Amino acid sequence: MQRWKLIIEYDGRPFSGWQRQDNGPSVQQSLEEAVQRLSGETVRVHASGRTDAGVHALGQVVHFDLEKPFLADKIRDGLNFHLRPNPVAVLSVEPVSEEFHARLTSTGRSYVYRILNRRAPPTLDAGRVWHVQRPLDAAAMHAAAQVLVGRHDFSSFRASICQAKSPLKTLDRLDVERVGDEVRIHAAARSFLHHQVRNMVGTLELVGAGKWSVADVRAALEACDRRRSGPTAPPDGLYFVEARYR
Amino acid sequence: MQRWKLIIEYDGRPFSGWQRQDNGPSVQQSLEEAVQRLSGETVRVHASGRTDAGVHALGQVVHFDLEKPFLADKIRDGLNFHLRPNPVAVLSVEPVSEEFHARLTSTGRSYVYRILNRRAPPTLDAGRVWHVQRPLDAAAMHAAAQVLVGRHDFSSFRASICQAKSPLKTLDRLDVERVGDEVRIHAAARSFLHHQVRNMVGTLELVGAGKWSVADVRAALEACDRRRSGPTAPPDGLYFVEARYR
Repeated sequence: MQRWKLIIEYDGRPFSGWQRQDNGPSVQQSLEEAVQRLSGETVRVHASGRTDAGVHALGQVVHFDLEKPFLADKIRDGLNFHLRPNPVAVLSVEPVSEEFHARLTSTGRSYVYRILNRRAPPTLDAGRVWHVQRPLDAAAMHAAAQVLVGRHDFSSFRASICQAKSPLKTLDRLDVERVGDEVRIHAAARSFLHHQVRNMVGTLELVGAGKWSVADVRAALEACDRRRSGPTAPPDGLYFVEARYR
Repeated sequence: MQRWKLIIEYDGRPFSGWQRQDNGPSVQQSLEEAVQRLSGETVRVHASGRTDAGVHALGQVVHFDLEKPFLADKIRDGLNFHLRPNPVAVLSVEPVSEEFHARLTSTGRSYVYRILNRRAPPTLDAGRVWHVQRPLDAAAMHAAAQVLVGRHDFSSFRASICQAKSPLKTLDRLDVERVGDEVRIHAAARSFLHHQVRNMVGTLELVGAGKWSVADVRAALEACDRRRSGPTAPPDGLYFVEARYR
């Protein structure tokens, strides 16, 4: 048996999310079926982070085990062939030891969130950005974001359906920058609560629009109550960028 | 009467090109119909450069005339409303004098061409890049591109259906750079022949792959014969970036 680590990219639009479910196609199912067609083996594919419906990935990390021997390049090219026409692509493949687990041994995840901040709607980037028409002050958003960096109880930014045992998380990075007519939010942590990035982005948008102050964000964090923070930003702008391992 | 200059963005995928034609929807028709719905006036919309089917625009410049008075912001927001669900967006609107003509008074156009150069197919960028699997040497492509810069007879890079009176053009810039797994080609000139950018890109790809030398590109240019240069690169990777005016 050989364990394989893959880095994959996907367009989240046609999927009901990473995880297999009954109500629509999932990235996991697409991959497991492609592995089956390539190898004849029925496998379970594990991801570093489960992404929600409509959320994209530039560098999701997954693993699975195969009994038969394969060359890494054969797996990459074979899966890319069998994944068509699903918008999922295998960027790289490498053999790893059985100690490796995409989710359990990951020591850090990072996301980027893209806001298209202009009057005109997106064309080429439709479904791939959150379109916010009112002008956003990215510097104010960045300043407020620093309140959230560090180890905190993130209950105010946690989805009600979140299954994590503890709301305590350490946010390593939350940077906001303006790039032309886009506002980009970069988030990094060992792990995130369900909807945490989208709930933080929805709150920072209020700051960018001048509706909320830094003190409001601090009060929302300290309240440990989901009803006290901003709305959940749409999935369209969210990208899983990478997972780190020791 | 007032002449209006607009900067527009579009996703070229669903269109048979900029120009109105019988065999499919065009960007021009989408805009003319939106103007009609906004103003009740039947106008002809002129573009700085006619793009082919599947070619995108980040900053196409167009103009048209309206009899009724309008505020610029009203035109921008009204056209963006009436353009839906077509992937065409009006980025900016300004009143100009009757001497302005999007095509006839433009003093320079620029394009960018994006090649996704990796084994894995595009997912998020499907239809928006040319996928080239074999490794390309961007530095070699850039060196060869410099042979084409300047005033030349570009017959070797001209579509047979090109309607320009002369094949003589001055290419101001043809830069090739690698950005991660993309190779980007930036082209600027007062004007281009039909398919000139795509034919130059198709030729430079042969250089990047090590099939052609700088001398081969020079010989192709000097032959003044379309059959002597490389294939036409697909429209997917081509973007009209901007038009300049004095």
